[in-house]
Amino acid sequence: MRTTVGIVGAGPAGLLLARLLRLAGIDCVVLECRDRAHVERRQRAGVLEQGTADVLRAAGAGERLDREGLRHDGIELRFGRRRHRIDFPGLTGGRSVTVYAQTEVCKDLIALALADGCPPLFHSEVLAVEDVDTPAPRVRFRRGGREEVLECDWVAGCDGFHGVTRGAVPAGVSRVHGRTYPYAWLGILADVPPSHDELVYARHDRGFALLSMRSPSVSRLYLQVPEGTKPEAWTDGEIWAELSRRLETDDDWALRRGPVTQKSVTPMRSYVHEPMRYGRLLLAGDAAHIVPPTGAKGLNLAVGDVVVLARALEHELRTGSTELLDAYSATCLRRVWQAERFCHDMTALLHRAPGATAFDDRLQLARLERVATSRAAATDLAEAYTGFPLG
Amino acid sequence: MRTTVGIVGAGPAGLLLARLLRLAGIDCVVLECRDRAHVERRQRAGVLEQGTADVLRAAGAGERLDREGLRHDGIELRFGRRRHRIDFPGLTGGRSVTVYAQTEVCKDLIALALADGCPPLFHSEVLAVEDVDTPAPRVRFRRGGREEVLECDWVAGCDGFHGVTRGAVPAGVSRVHGRTYPYAWLGILADVPPSHDELVYARHDRGFALLSMRSPSVSRLYLQVPEGTKPEAWTDGEIWAELSRRLETDDDWALRRGPVTQKSVTPMRSYVHEPMRYGRLLLAGDAAHIVPPTGAKGLNLAVGDVVVLARALEHELRTGSTELLDAYSATCLRRVWQAERFCHDMTALLHRAPGATAFDDRLQLARLERVATSRAAATDLAEAYTGFPLG
Repeated sequence: MRTTVGIVGAGPAGLLLARLLRLAGIDCVVLECRDRAHVERRQRAGVLEQGTADVLRAAGAGERLDREGLRHDGIELRFGRRRHRIDFPGLTGGRSVTVYAQTEVCKDLIALALADGCPPLFHSEVLAVEDVDTPAPRVRFRRGGREEVLECDWVAGCDGFHGVTRGAVPAGVSRVHGRTYPYAWLGILADVPPSHDELVYARHDRGFALLSMRSPSVSRLYLQVPEGTKPEAWTDGEIWAELSRRLETDDDWALRRGPVTQKSVTPMRSYVHEPMRYGRLLLAGDAAHIVPPTGAKGLNLAVGDVVVLARALEHELRTGSTELLDAYSATCLRRVWQAERFCHDMTALLHRAPGATAFDDRLQLARLERVATSRAAATDLAEAYTGFPLG
Repeated sequence: MRTTVGIVGAGPAGLLLARLLRLAGIDCVVLECRDRAHVERRQRAGVLEQGTADVLRAAGAGERLDREGLRHDGIELRFGRRRHRIDFPGLTGGRSVTVYAQTEVCKDLIALALADGCPPLFHSEVLAVEDVDTPAPRVRFRRGGREEVLECDWVAGCDGFHGVTRGAVPAGVSRVHGRTYPYAWLGILADVPPSHDELVYARHDRGFALLSMRSPSVSRLYLQVPEGTKPEAWTDGEIWAELSRRLETDDDWALRRGPVTQKSVTPMRSYVHEPMRYGRLLLAGDAAHIVPPTGAKGLNLAVGDVVVLARALEHELRTGSTELLDAYSATCLRRVWQAERFCHDMTALLHRAPGATAFDDRLQLARLERVATSRAAATDLAEAYTGFPLG
């Protein structure tokens, strides 16, 4: 099999890249080890930066997003039983975010791929990416029990943190940065209307809590728990009780409870692989970098990467110049490091670290107080939350 | 001996409080264990917030300050061999700072005390502060080999971090917060015009460096060194070489060298004692809180405390109401915690911690890059540097 751009992974990065390339008339093939139902079901992020929503619209994936996505003009910070709203448009000159689940983005992009007549090859497990330092890279994969080879000009590694493409970068070239956190998020989906119409980020002496939503009838809620916690360790009743405690306010706000339909634990990690390009292999999204979920940046970074990548590939194929591809890694990493900074600092601002001293707690509260009282500090946060510029 | 307000310590806090009280017609006595020459010579801070300069002017201590103080409209951040200026008035609506050494502030305030006919009692070593939880507190002190007692209505503890007054707060009442840092500042005074007309804060892989000044002909420079370093461990030549290395830029800027006239090591500590009032004892300045010097806040916090304190004492003596005195601790601590936050975060932004990972380094650089590219982030810094509101 032969194509111009071989794309490994049908998550949002791979699916969107494929769509952008098809729109530019560039031939590509997407290989995905799982089946379609799995891709359309795995729960991930749900907050789209304004720029991300704009990219999806421009790619023709905006119809359902505009109909079902929830425009959010702010978030609420909750600490010391008080509530403080961050007004995104007021602070950023009109920017906002859209709550629309990653699962829905994937469904929309798969539907477009089918309509384009170029569906991802599901059940295609990539075994190795070879010869990326030559003009003729190859992706070896197994489908229906048979080994096949995809020959291409460029390989896009969109296969996530646990994918295989990153392994094709020689150890002497890779520089890896990161850290893990001593806590994780216990997340639930619940069939109950969200108890607040915007996301609520709560800093509490017992740990962080986040109130979020998937739709007007489905709540998404998270609790900071120790690293390594198993979801089964918490009963639904215990989860609701703890959420109520951490989200408690001095006014008459109350948490609505409902049936829990899903329960999972998300580990917290910061990770950056540099460079994001090696030869004819280009890494995008989680394959190259991971952020802790506090800043809601994972999906948005992936979209940023593939926009830069699609533009660079198109430039090369139109003009023969690799100028933009040569700049791909540096261009993306500027934005990636800003997101790493923001997500790390938002995480540190809101989570209670094991072993935190009373001094650490007071610094956290002083930082939150600063955001609540300084327009400059709130603007800094709002700009970062609604999105750093692409490219 | 009897007075209305007994003030322990003739640093800037005690001297300014005495002057403010005298202007309000309130009787007070200042006890200082050292002699006048020592007080006028000990090197400390040198950056006055705009509000601090205004307070000194209003107290009649502004004449030499206005003549000799250097108005600074910004600072320079230096990282990755690049230079980035923070424009204070442009970001804060006109605010600036004044470089004028603490020694000079003390000289001016002592001169005023002499002119008022109420000089501090030098060589008066306070032994104990007693009965502060009664209406008749007493300060026992030794002068000229004789023990004496100062009876007063209120005691102001302005005797610094190593003073004795804080010890009069019972252990069960005190709450102490803080941390030490694994590095210190090796500082020099040098008879050479400053190599830049504004302060330069440099983040370097080898550690932090600060270029500052005392006057147009005297430079004040600092190097981050490991905690516990002895000044003798560095020759003057080694200090200049290391400063040149850490301050190096990509342009033709160069560090001017000159004779080193003083060399010392400043430890780095964050510390807050709560509450700042117990009974009739009121703590102010370093007696209650310490910040690492990076944010240039120590002297400014002390001035803020005594302004709030003088106002509260005057209110009580005029009206009999202790309302403002009752609020003293909470009023000051709001500002103190903002300064603790700022100084801690500025320190973490610019110093290289032992054991810092490559990820930590990149986050530091991303934070500096953010300040250099976001008006909101730069404004947040400029507002904090030029001063949080009093009271």
